[in-house]
Amino acid sequence: MSDIIEKLTEVLSSRRQADPDSSYVAQLHNKGLDHILKKVGEESAEVLIAAKASEYDHNRDAVVYETADLWFHTMVMLSHLGLEPADVLNELDRRFGLSGIEEKASRG
Amino acid sequence: MSDIIEKLTEVLSSRRQADPDSSYVAQLHNKGLDHILKKVGEESAEVLIAAKASEYDHNRDAVVYETADLWFHTMVMLSHLGLEPADVLNELDRRFGLSGIEEKASRG
Amino acid sequence: MSDIIEKLTEVLSSRRQADPDSSYVAQLHNKGLDHILKKVGEESAEVLIAAKASEYDHNRDAVVYETADLWFHTMVMLSHLGLEPADVLNELDRRFGLSGIEEKASRG
Amino acid sequence: MSDIIEKLTEVLSSRRQADPDSSYVAQLHNKGLDHILKKVGEESAEVLIAAKASEYDHNRDAVVYETADLWFHTMVMLSHLGLEPADVLNELDRRFGLSGIEEKASRG
Repeated sequence: MSDIIEKLTEVLSSRRQADPDSSYVAQLHNKGLDHILKKVGEESAEVLIAAKASEYDHNRDAVVYETADLWFHTMVMLSHLGLEPADVLNELDRRFGLSGIEEKASRG
Repeated sequence: MSDIIEKLTEVLSSRRQADPDSSYVAQLHNKGLDHILKKVGEESAEVLIAAKASEYDHNRDAVVYETADLWFHTMVMLSHLGLEPADVLNELDRRFGLSGIEEKASRG
Repeated sequence: MSDIIEKLTEVLSSRRQADPDSSYVAQLHNKGLDHILKKVGEESAEVLIAAKASEYDHNRDAVVYETADLWFHTMVMLSHLGLEPADVLNELDRRFGLSGIEEKASRG
Repeated sequence: MSDIIEKLTEVLSSRRQADPDSSYVAQLHNKGLDHILKKVGEESAEVLIAAKASEYDHNRDAVVYETADLWFHTMVMLSHLGLEPADVLNELDRRFGLSGIEEKASRG
């Protein structure tokens, strides 16, 4: 799995400066942060819709597909702001190392 | 990075059946899918707020922190539905292998 | 203001069966509930972005514009499900009459 | 219906300076814009969940209830930024008067 995230990080970085006509990633960067965030909001909505529907239609593939879209667009957002998936994973690691996730139980 | 995702996958799986009083993850599962999805929506909003604010206050740590919260809650959602982060990463890999991300440029 | 909501209710109802080529409302209904909900999620994201930006750029017109978009798309959603803005306003009235909004303070 | 929106506008305005211990509205203002926006995001998620579920369980009351929550929290947001529901309704009126909603069909 590490290979996938590292490959994605590289691909997202290299496509940032690509031709917007040939690269969806370049297109997103070209349209700017507000457009990228709008897409994050839209993909988040699609995750909720697919997940809620899966309780009834048991279509888990749709949940995987929409979550991939959401994670992908948050990765483009990170890249647009000069950040990387590794920054987020390190933060998650830090929380687990420090039992930070559990701490959250108390802050509700 | 693979270690972090694998560790998270294991931890999320093992805590699913933990005591809701001592584990935030167990608490989320105990409250059910609607509650988990509500949290995904809330964390998604926090990502948008932090990312938009970062254009002005340059606080990128907040973006990392909120994205970690969003990814974490989507992982709990996946776990609640019997899915794993690996399913999502494999879907992303499939798209890159098939140049599927680029295809998306045409569907707008 | 009542005139505006009543006019909107009528317009949304009459356009539901219009030609999707000439009416955006008919287009939304034609694309179905998932598409309408995706738009609600997207417009909600745009409200958050505009509201957060307004703290820095003081552009309150953008907040009004995006909130209009959000309310409009929730009204199309209501119409698609056989509901009306009046149903939502009556619920708000009921809460105020019963002090229900205040009750919410206790449920956090 | 106009009465309801006018009453809500007055109530929201008067409670802005109320004691946060006794008023949920004052509590929201006291916690600040980010908290209010987080609630808008959360309530938006609840609208999507209820609307999607209604396709299967036909529970339209939940859609009305959650949309009331969403509209209410966007009204608190407007109030926090010195705006009013009337500003949003006037924008919707302007669009209908100018056929602006239809224009939107072309911008996709």
